Amino acid sequence: MVELDYGCALGDVREQWERIENDLRRAHERLLEDKEAGVIGFLDLPFGNTKNVKELVQKKRSFTDELVLIGIGGSSLGAECAVCSLGKAQGFYVMDNVDPDKTVKVLKTIDPERTCFTVISKSGSTTETIANFMAVHPVIKSKEQLVIITDPERGFLRSYAQNNGIDTLPVPPNVPGRFSVLSPVGLFPMAYMGVDVDKVLEGAKKALELCMIEKLEDNPAWIITALHYLHLLNGKNIAVMMPYAERLSLFVSWWRQLWAESLGKEGKGQTPVKAIGTVDQHSQIQLYNDGPKDKIITLMVVEDMEDDIALAPLSEEFSHLAGKTLSQVLKASYQGTAGALVKNGVPVLVVKLSRLDEEHLGSLFIIYECATALLGYLLGINPFDQPGVEEGKRLTHGILGRKGYEEKAQEAMDIAKRCTSSSLRML
Amino acid sequence: MVELDYGCALGDVREQWERIENDLRRAHERLLEDKEAGVIGFLDLPFGNTKNVKELVQKKRSFTDELVLIGIGGSSLGAECAVCSLGKAQGFYVMDNVDPDKTVKVLKTIDPERTCFTVISKSGSTTETIANFMAVHPVIKSKEQLVIITDPERGFLRSYAQNNGIDTLPVPPNVPGRFSVLSPVGLFPMAYMGVDVDKVLEGAKKALELCMIEKLEDNPAWIITALHYLHLLNGKNIAVMMPYAERLSLFVSWWRQLWAESLGKEGKGQTPVKAIGTVDQHSQIQLYNDGPKDKIITLMVVEDMEDDIALAPLSEEFSHLAGKTLSQVLKASYQGTAGALVKNGVPVLVVKLSRLDEEHLGSLFIIYECATALLGYLLGINPFDQPGVEEGKRLTHGILGRKGYEEKAQEAMDIAKRCTSSSLRML
Repeated sequence: MVELDYGCALGDVREQWERIENDLRRAHERLLEDKEAGVIGFLDLPFGNTKNVKELVQKKRSFTDELVLIGIGGSSLGAECAVCSLGKAQGFYVMDNVDPDKTVKVLKTIDPERTCFTVISKSGSTTETIANFMAVHPVIKSKEQLVIITDPERGFLRSYAQNNGIDTLPVPPNVPGRFSVLSPVGLFPMAYMGVDVDKVLEGAKKALELCMIEKLEDNPAWIITALHYLHLLNGKNIAVMMPYAERLSLFVSWWRQLWAESLGKEGKGQTPVKAIGTVDQHSQIQLYNDGPKDKIITLMVVEDMEDDIALAPLSEEFSHLAGKTLSQVLKASYQGTAGALVKNGVPVLVVKLSRLDEEHLGSLFIIYECATALLGYLLGINPFDQPGVEEGKRLTHGILGRKGYEEKAQEAMDIAKRCTSSSLRML
Repeated sequence: MVELDYGCALGDVREQWERIENDLRRAHERLLEDKEAGVIGFLDLPFGNTKNVKELVQKKRSFTDELVLIGIGGSSLGAECAVCSLGKAQGFYVMDNVDPDKTVKVLKTIDPERTCFTVISKSGSTTETIANFMAVHPVIKSKEQLVIITDPERGFLRSYAQNNGIDTLPVPPNVPGRFSVLSPVGLFPMAYMGVDVDKVLEGAKKALELCMIEKLEDNPAWIITALHYLHLLNGKNIAVMMPYAERLSLFVSWWRQLWAESLGKEGKGQTPVKAIGTVDQHSQIQLYNDGPKDKIITLMVVEDMEDDIALAPLSEEFSHLAGKTLSQVLKASYQGTAGALVKNGVPVLVVKLSRLDEEHLGSLFIIYECATALLGYLLGINPFDQPGVEEGKRLTHGILGRKGYEEKAQEAMDIAKRCTSSSLRML
């Protein structure tokens, strides 16, 4: 069961809610047109064939036991989310950041001869990914240990794979990284780690059917889109997602990229914030309850938690806890927190999962992807590009001495000089 | 070396900057008055004696090797930050959340006979902390393995410790949890894990001297306060902290509580957002560069990184990376990103550390605590209370059947009913 409770999410946008359905219909039609035109590919992914992915997993599994995923952003977050939230993370390592602390720690942990190194980059030339590949490739004993997932035709990694006879899987060209979790980008690492990828796609397919219903109350993506859109217009420039389940932590990281990178452009967008219940009750809830009314909050709760543990009696003062399980305390905390937020006039949307499994996760992926795309159309921006990251890349190339970027090196130095023009040395 | 570069942080508040010093001086005087009156205690902590803490560590270390910290929010984040960012996390476990997945994982990992269980709660009755204590205390073999850190006189944990002859350390009553990292709350777990706590306090002392200088350009806390205050008045309701060092990830978690819980009240406050470079260049930077101008961003960078790794040549196309180290790529990415943000008119403050060690971390703790307190005074709120978390606690007590909270149980149920009054079942 996946349920969306939004009776406490409307707040002061109830009136606009009654009138939003036509706007959603137009955005929806635009989405279908773009899909038909082949411009956007993410809606086709739930219907993909997983045979190639599973055969390649079988081949690599025959002589390796662990997976190092070299990739960043849309090339790592989806797989990392699925593998970790489904409890399959033993022997799974991600090299996303170019932080030597992280990379060296992984290299010290793995047995390089028994490891499958999977390099993922849609463009085939992401600086961090290539740098980490350059850092680790001296320890890779044979090309058989490598898998490259990249554009089917273009880019450095594609030609590198062709020239060196390395196994590859394709990233569909019409799917941006942050929408690619249901492509081989997400599916290969998932399948390698023992996630049932057919069930992930099955859940996505079922949810996608709902996302095609042209009626607000019956379409989960429309509901999520409408609520965030109306509250954003009403000044809520922050969207919090707060699961009461540590395992969903990486789902929020995945969503956070989707939301920020798809919608944050042309001066528009809504800043996604990650919070975890109950931990952030002791960190952020004071602000959410009593601070500015600038947020819409999604709480997530999982009904059946594995490995629950009962509380032994300790003292009369806490007799109300004795005999309860830890997850009962967790759920009561979610209800108490939700109640206080509602009393304080904060719009609260609740996503309830009966349990955390492949199907449910697959459904969440596609619902949030549809909601993000629709919200982009409503805002009048292109949810599938990311022009605002290019200048930082160019300046970085300049600093790193890449040919053709000499002017950018100078520009970066000039800015750095400005930044240090007011400076305080403290220690 | 700790350096604060703010030449690119003024943006459109340059004019107000020239006039802010008197306001800061008044806030500063208020801080000193409250300190003299004994109302606030965090400024005294750098001068504390660590003898008791170190003796207790020695005693516990003689028969245990691992530490389980049972505590949440201000009772865990400071120690967790120091232990993890200083690379001492081997054998250190935090039970903060009441998520069975987390608690059971820790119980499966540790050797309960060789573990020191440290229960930390200022009030002595934090629900999550007591619940986790109840979940684990059947596996604790002897009271000698326990340490309780709580109010010196009041609360359940204090009387429990007295009645059962358990070793304790005090939380100063005039120090709220989120300001307590330099008290035994932070120092005992740090010292147990091998952090040199005297050096942490030494760094804090040195930085505190600077925070007492009544001149804007010479006082790091004043600079941080002024920038965040002026930009907040100017509509920037979001403060991002983005270290280019995975190890500082938990420093941001610590700061995030300090900022949100101290300042988010009476409709005021600024939402802290955690980001990590370079990972979030591929997730949040599109939004930061090209989305709404609602943010002030602090970048952090560490100059000397341990365990660096050189990049082996891979291809002519990436010859500019060959021979460089991973941390050089990391730093170039920080510079490129900072440059793009500055070009886009985003205010960027840079905190530079020569290296990540005890002294530097101690200095950051006290500087940000001072800045938070001052900003609270400027905003006209009390930075040391947290009234907005109480109602959620009461409702949770009601749901859990605690005596005296029967009405709250009913209220929580009524709200839950409202929330499910509009609901969509998806799967």
